[in-house]
Amino acid sequence: MKILFTAMAVALVAATAFAAQFIPPDLRETALATFEPLPFTPAVTNNPITPEKIALGKALFFDPRLSSSGVFSCNSCHNLATGGDDNHETSIGHGWQKGQRNAPTVFNSVFNKSQFWDGRAEDLKAQAKGPIQAGVEMANTPYRVVETFKSMPQYVEWFHSAFPEEADPITLENVANALADYEATLVTPGPFDAFLNGDDTAIGPEEKQGLALFIEKGCSSCHSGVNLGGEGYYPFGLVEKPSADVLPENDKGRFAVTNVPEDSYVFRVPSLRNVAITAPYFHSGKVWDLRQAVAIMGTTQLGQELTQIEIDRIVAYLHSLTGKRPEITYPILPTETPTTPRPRS
Amino acid sequence: MKILFTAMAVALVAATAFAAQFIPPDLRETALATFEPLPFTPAVTNNPITPEKIALGKALFFDPRLSSSGVFSCNSCHNLATGGDDNHETSIGHGWQKGQRNAPTVFNSVFNKSQFWDGRAEDLKAQAKGPIQAGVEMANTPYRVVETFKSMPQYVEWFHSAFPEEADPITLENVANALADYEATLVTPGPFDAFLNGDDTAIGPEEKQGLALFIEKGCSSCHSGVNLGGEGYYPFGLVEKPSADVLPENDKGRFAVTNVPEDSYVFRVPSLRNVAITAPYFHSGKVWDLRQAVAIMGTTQLGQELTQIEIDRIVAYLHSLTGKRPEITYPILPTETPTTPRPRS
Repeated sequence: MKILFTAMAVALVAATAFAAQFIPPDLRETALATFEPLPFTPAVTNNPITPEKIALGKALFFDPRLSSSGVFSCNSCHNLATGGDDNHETSIGHGWQKGQRNAPTVFNSVFNKSQFWDGRAEDLKAQAKGPIQAGVEMANTPYRVVETFKSMPQYVEWFHSAFPEEADPITLENVANALADYEATLVTPGPFDAFLNGDDTAIGPEEKQGLALFIEKGCSSCHSGVNLGGEGYYPFGLVEKPSADVLPENDKGRFAVTNVPEDSYVFRVPSLRNVAITAPYFHSGKVWDLRQAVAIMGTTQLGQELTQIEIDRIVAYLHSLTGKRPEITYPILPTETPTTPRPRS
Repeated sequence: MKILFTAMAVALVAATAFAAQFIPPDLRETALATFEPLPFTPAVTNNPITPEKIALGKALFFDPRLSSSGVFSCNSCHNLATGGDDNHETSIGHGWQKGQRNAPTVFNSVFNKSQFWDGRAEDLKAQAKGPIQAGVEMANTPYRVVETFKSMPQYVEWFHSAFPEEADPITLENVANALADYEATLVTPGPFDAFLNGDDTAIGPEEKQGLALFIEKGCSSCHSGVNLGGEGYYPFGLVEKPSADVLPENDKGRFAVTNVPEDSYVFRVPSLRNVAITAPYFHSGKVWDLRQAVAIMGTTQLGQELTQIEIDRIVAYLHSLTGKRPEITYPILPTETPTTPRPRS
């Protein structure tokens, strides 16, 4: 009996608190000043998207022969069956080595102004060339990549139709071009986009209160725009440094790119789209619970101890950023020939 | 000029030899006495196939969380984008360990009378439980598998609709049941089936000559039935022992299962369906070239040195066993919760 009463009392307090927060009538207009719904067709500069490039890029994305071991495809760490990521603190790569930073989701990554946690790649094309050659990831070489795809007649045909103006289209550059074009199609509109587009019922009152808090508390000063992040660079620990397990001392973030002391522990603000399905969090991947991640952001970036109810609401709002993942027909990949380089492990 | 004349002479000899071999008019009837076309709906004993089980099995097949590291799914070594196998001599598993034997294709495996190279699993259900728990493959435990799927509400719902009569359906047994049912749908009818089913134009004259040779030389005494193999057990080296690199001394095959000395170096005859897209060959995975594999079979199993023309024709015929792979919509998998066991690596 006592438990029942206590539960009722807690429920009552929660309900009261829930009802208490005002939802501004102009919430959408306020939100539209800061955020942007997903466009239907993303634009990719200097690399016009064609159906042939998308089809080739999809095959490449799922092809484990892009790695020297033949074990990892892009999809291994950016799994389109889950959150476009891999559910690891840091990814496992060639020879069971661990990467340095958490693998970000590929979904909506076309909208990030730069790629990687330190923004060292200017676009998806530049990004794609990284993991293919990184020793701890796919451990491949441009020469071997070219040799691999040149050895399979079906791929040769696909590269020629994707890059019809080129005499010798099988290059690492074009692998990256096609991958970037395919990745540009991996866009996940969600309830928040529907709300921004005018559907008042797309998100409920708790999500709306969470959105109002997200703006009011200042989360949206960094997590803004179409991707709710993916644009600016800020120190992790703007107000208060996070604990060393969450912000390991040996990873100085953007400092490694710019060599400017002020860029120590500076990272590109991650997009919050699909954040509820892409744990663990932060570049270190050390935080698995979204509530805890929100609380850490409150103290380190905003200098505020968020209440449990505030965290609940913000988390409810963040769930409205979980989008509809595209339906993907699993590709049928070309078969190796005697000249295909054999897997190295 | 000399090269041109030589090439023409070779072509002339080849063309003559090609035309010389007689195609028996009753080839289909002869073939039907030995082979069987693929049925439309495979039967799975003691595990009735339902759409709910297939859907669950598909999700499980593609889910890397079936492995303790979260790196490997069934699809990692039995890749449905390629030949239902992994293009490795032996697969790479947990901690970058190598398996002992070549991963066979999952396509049409429902028609094998037993599973694994030594036939130690009586069916696909029994097979599925092996790699999940093998330390060099997925390195998982039944307890952890159950804990994983119980932690995700969407999976709980899927298990309940797949096994509606069970109060507690999330078990390793049912994981294996669902996987087996999904795998039973992975059937690839090809040109040879169309030929058996009455279409004379489904395979060309060279394929037909190859088929006639395949029967005449005795290949079909082991590679028969609906799967052209997958039924009997024979010593690798029936007539002449293969070289030690192809038949490593430390793998005694079925002897490890039965402990009968006569079963030393005895293996289950593999299915030849999709053989042209599933290199490398044999349990050791040491032979990458199909022509070479056919030649080795000639000497070791039939005691015959096949001519280059005979090998050409048999290989042409074997290509007619490459089937149409099913179109698969890539699944959207449930998201982890705080109680989902974290990947171990």
